[in-house]
Amino acid sequence: MKAKVHITLKNGVLDPQGKAIASALHGLGFDGVGEVRQGKVIELQVNETDEARAREQVEAMCKKLLANPVMENYTIELSA
Amino acid sequence: MKAKVHITLKNGVLDPQGKAIASALHGLGFDGVGEVRQGKVIELQVNETDEARAREQVEAMCKKLLANPVMENYTIELSA
Repeated sequence: MKAKVHITLKNGVLDPQGKAIASALHGLGFDGVGEVRQGKVIELQVNETDEARAREQVEAMCKKLLANPVMENYTIELSA
Repeated sequence: MKAKVHITLKNGVLDPQGKAIASALHGLGFDGVGEVRQGKVIELQVNETDEARAREQVEAMCKKLLANPVMENYTIELSA
């Protein structure tokens, strides 16, 4: 199965990269831009056909390596 | 409007970050993991109520700053 993991900073956590993008956009003349936040997407190929077990495995990967649960939220999307 | 820009490397472009994640996952015992690719998500608040104009504006931001069209694909998702 294919898994797509979206990782975003939790609300309230300062996002310096987002701030840098926002000020670069303002500098380019895009004045209508408000808050900008940057996150990650990780696409994985998992060798598992059962959806529940694939989700469990990807969840474990998120907790152990992919995301920092203190500062980040993650969502998992699975597809065949 | 809110815009979500997904930026992924084009197929065939080497993704060293993805390779590093894959080998770290193998090192942690997740042997069923195949290819891993990492992308970015940028969430923007755009001060524009018309969807077509918002899309046009975000498209221009992607071309000028957010994505590298030589190596990256991007998709734009708008919501109210």
